[in-house]
Amino acid sequence: MQIQFWSIGKKNEPYVDEGVALFTKRISHYYKVDWKIIPTSKNAAVLTSEDLKVDEGKIINNLLHKEDYLILLDERGKNLHSEDLANLIQQRTNDSTKQIIFLIGGAYGVSNDVLTRANFKWSLSNLVFPHQLVRLILAEQVYRACTINKNEKYHHQ
Amino acid sequence: MQIQFWSIGKKNEPYVDEGVALFTKRISHYYKVDWKIIPTSKNAAVLTSEDLKVDEGKIINNLLHKEDYLILLDERGKNLHSEDLANLIQQRTNDSTKQIIFLIGGAYGVSNDVLTRANFKWSLSNLVFPHQLVRLILAEQVYRACTINKNEKYHHQ
Repeated sequence: MQIQFWSIGKKNEPYVDEGVALFTKRISHYYKVDWKIIPTSKNAAVLTSEDLKVDEGKIINNLLHKEDYLILLDERGKNLHSEDLANLIQQRTNDSTKQIIFLIGGAYGVSNDVLTRANFKWSLSNLVFPHQLVRLILAEQVYRACTINKNEKYHHQ
Repeated sequence: MQIQFWSIGKKNEPYVDEGVALFTKRISHYYKVDWKIIPTSKNAAVLTSEDLKVDEGKIINNLLHKEDYLILLDERGKNLHSEDLANLIQQRTNDSTKQIIFLIGGAYGVSNDVLTRANFKWSLSNLVFPHQLVRLILAEQVYRACTINKNEKYHHQ
């Protein structure tokens, strides 16, 4: 199985870059893993937030394959324990899913099309985090999930 | 009012250091702010986790002043929305609290004495984060709270 992280916006800011690279490299010992940074629409400045979401949604839908398992990071999603995420990844591994995609939406979220397409909506916390920090938290949690599934000692709770 | 962040353990790892410094500097535009890294007990290797917590608890209690408002980061604590944290900080500012201390405990948590002393127990998320990453998340959330209380545009949700 392959794990992909997709994020709409700018490249990593320096304050998260090292951590994202660190945990992504660690994940690569368990799964093929990659990041795709999808630039915000060039017309962002002249578009309404709704039109911007639709524009970005089209790009996302074009990139998705029918069989991809799409996990949308969304504040209206479900709160998970780290063990729940580990289970979710293990289930997808067991049922021969080819690719899990974790998607961090744009500044205003994602279009209704993408919301509907998502196989699972996950809220990291009741707290609002900057999208850059979400990248780091996400990479760490997916690495943690890998270690939980292998009974490794990183996660000791 | 002064805001202090206390954390038991090692100095910042490189992957969080820049972000912690970034958000701490931003907080300094609103409140006097400082970090105190309390080293793990030198006897950690030969102590049970319970004795280690008691040892660290004594150090913490010696550092605390009676009037300090202690917020303990604890997974059994209350989940907050970013706006709730902003309210909490604003209330303490209004009632002339001299010092808020945010405490990240040791590897095994904190002693019962410290648990009892805490004025508030706060769980960031149902997810388990490494304590290093908690430092970064905490600094960002306290900065966010400052901007919420001043109606600044950083927090736009």
